[in-house]
Amino acid sequence: MTNSPASPPVNPAANPAVAAPRAPAVDAVRLARAYLSRVAEPYPAALAALIAEVGPVEAAELVRSGEVSSSVASQTSARRSEERARADLAAIARVGGRLVIPEDEEWPRWPLLGLENVAARRCGGEPIALWVRGAPFLADAVDKAVAVVGSRAASGYGEQVAGEFSYGLALAGLTVVSGAAYGIDGAAHRGALAAPGLTIAVLACGVDTAYPAGHQGLLARISREGLIVSEYPPGVMPARHRFLTRNRLIAALAGGTVVVEAGRRSGAKNTAAITQALGRPLMVVPGPVTSASSVGCHELLRDGRAVSVSSVAEIVESVGRFGDDLATEPAEKESDLGVPQGEAMRVYEALGKRNGVSDEAVSVESGVPLERVRALLPELELAGLALHVDRGWQKLEMR
Amino acid sequence: MTNSPASPPVNPAANPAVAAPRAPAVDAVRLARAYLSRVAEPYPAALAALIAEVGPVEAAELVRSGEVSSSVASQTSARRSEERARADLAAIARVGGRLVIPEDEEWPRWPLLGLENVAARRCGGEPIALWVRGAPFLADAVDKAVAVVGSRAASGYGEQVAGEFSYGLALAGLTVVSGAAYGIDGAAHRGALAAPGLTIAVLACGVDTAYPAGHQGLLARISREGLIVSEYPPGVMPARHRFLTRNRLIAALAGGTVVVEAGRRSGAKNTAAITQALGRPLMVVPGPVTSASSVGCHELLRDGRAVSVSSVAEIVESVGRFGDDLATEPAEKESDLGVPQGEAMRVYEALGKRNGVSDEAVSVESGVPLERVRALLPELELAGLALHVDRGWQKLEMR
Repeated sequence: MTNSPASPPVNPAANPAVAAPRAPAVDAVRLARAYLSRVAEPYPAALAALIAEVGPVEAAELVRSGEVSSSVASQTSARRSEERARADLAAIARVGGRLVIPEDEEWPRWPLLGLENVAARRCGGEPIALWVRGAPFLADAVDKAVAVVGSRAASGYGEQVAGEFSYGLALAGLTVVSGAAYGIDGAAHRGALAAPGLTIAVLACGVDTAYPAGHQGLLARISREGLIVSEYPPGVMPARHRFLTRNRLIAALAGGTVVVEAGRRSGAKNTAAITQALGRPLMVVPGPVTSASSVGCHELLRDGRAVSVSSVAEIVESVGRFGDDLATEPAEKESDLGVPQGEAMRVYEALGKRNGVSDEAVSVESGVPLERVRALLPELELAGLALHVDRGWQKLEMR
Repeated sequence: MTNSPASPPVNPAANPAVAAPRAPAVDAVRLARAYLSRVAEPYPAALAALIAEVGPVEAAELVRSGEVSSSVASQTSARRSEERARADLAAIARVGGRLVIPEDEEWPRWPLLGLENVAARRCGGEPIALWVRGAPFLADAVDKAVAVVGSRAASGYGEQVAGEFSYGLALAGLTVVSGAAYGIDGAAHRGALAAPGLTIAVLACGVDTAYPAGHQGLLARISREGLIVSEYPPGVMPARHRFLTRNRLIAALAGGTVVVEAGRRSGAKNTAAITQALGRPLMVVPGPVTSASSVGCHELLRDGRAVSVSSVAEIVESVGRFGDDLATEPAEKESDLGVPQGEAMRVYEALGKRNGVSDEAVSVESGVPLERVRALLPELELAGLALHVDRGWQKLEMR
């Protein structure tokens, strides 16, 4: 299969070791993982433990024969006769895709290893395999990636911010990961594509399925310019529980997650919880407190679970591991505005607006001793804030 | 003076001790503090130390004679001949006001003591005296008080939120403290008055001065229904440095500060810094990241200096010291929605939408073992989520 369209595109520059054809054993492994990916609904913890113990080929044989523990059986008995590995690999090849497995160089090893930590394991561990469409090398694409997610029922404000931030993140060289849903997700993908930049759509169904239907065109474009990724074999339809499994993959493939808008019950809050379990930066975009679409974001802020981000620079800074990307401070500081301080300010404020005022009157009005007033007035004159006129001193407005 | 209109209105119920006429010494003290309040521009640290050492009457005599240290002289020499104590007390009486001094029961002792802590002293200590208009007993009025402040250049969103939150805070029995400026401050006062509730306007000029001019009507109403407070004697005009001094008093009189909107350089950020120096809760209202009026709020959030508040209940909870005022959680939790979990959800999602599906087909589609499917289907039926039809099981939509 190494030379079939279904094999992963190798990147010889980045990974010289994989430029050579694979050993045939890899095909047996790929077939075994394709079979197991169809047989068990993610995430099957007992099956994953068996694969870790005996390897995917042996694990597939045991599952086929039914000679497995009751916990593995409960995860595989319903579909163990579904022998569709070759058909599924042919189906993914027909749409120009491939099955990426942990044995491949393309496997996003480090990002997905996060799923093995104690807190994250409650959301499931490393996937058995990933079904992928799109030319980019998956491991490279997620090297610097940020998830941008949020409500389907987004406001105009939310879609605008999701689009602009994703555009900026893509311009900054980051990959934008999202779930291809209506609302925030769609705006995030579109923003990244417009840059143009790299975006990854993670689906709760097969990568050959256009879901939601209204995003058929968007998904086609992502499959040409970015990546579509799923744990589900071709033809699997979306289902409620699959969105939760999908959310875990969005969080795991990204170095951090930005929640742009989330209602009180938004699925984005699930992605947020997984991001926290992974120990990765969770960011939220504030919005009007009068908007139901921002309630979930403000809850996360108030609970201290997320950091507020208002710009692309702040997101890049929060994700942090991408180097010394500190959000630049606005150049002008408040103390640099040429505004006189302390006694000088008091003298300045005591100057006449239309007519000159005597030194003595300035002293009484400002409460600053006369000798200090006489020392400060020439300084204010030099600063262009005071003018010596016939009857004394007049104020010049600050620019 | 005890029975003159300029004396503080006593509240015999709350403070039986002050129902009796004061000793004449208090008048000498009041005259001394009125004189010192006019002579020194707030905040005069050296003069305050002298008053603490020798008392206000003796301190006034020393200042008058010029027999003071050079540091006290620098704070008093310019105006020490301004003998206007009786005239100022008469002026405040003419507008129905009074001078409240630390020797009075009405003095807000505990709130202002906050200004004596190390960090807050950089903003100045306890005032020498407060010029006050309005019937409420000042110490009681600030017992449960929240400052609601923000930009003069507020957005419609900001004014709406300031008004609605202040209305709600006033209804909850809290006093709303603000600075009577255009924008957020004005909306905060108006919201509290509408409840109807108590509001305090703290001015950077004499309490007989309507500043800003456009708030003349608002200030007149506050003087009738609430309180107007200033460190400045009657007739003193507002000046830039006086707004900073005023901000310190707003923060000190309140148990916590809510910044509704603040641009990058808003004076509200100064009030925020003092609130922090006082060690009191600093709250900000999030807003659209596309709005310049919320930039200062989001900076405070991002720096971890402020907590986000989106409702009156959250403000009351954050201020905290008002008792067990925990913001109530929304009654419905996500896990209480009757949504089936785990295998039950997978079975539910595998049911036919239009036609019945056999137990076996549900098992394969869901990946749940057949015996579990057969146990779960009656449960889903009881929950009103599955219907047994001719050819098997059909899905009923969740409400």
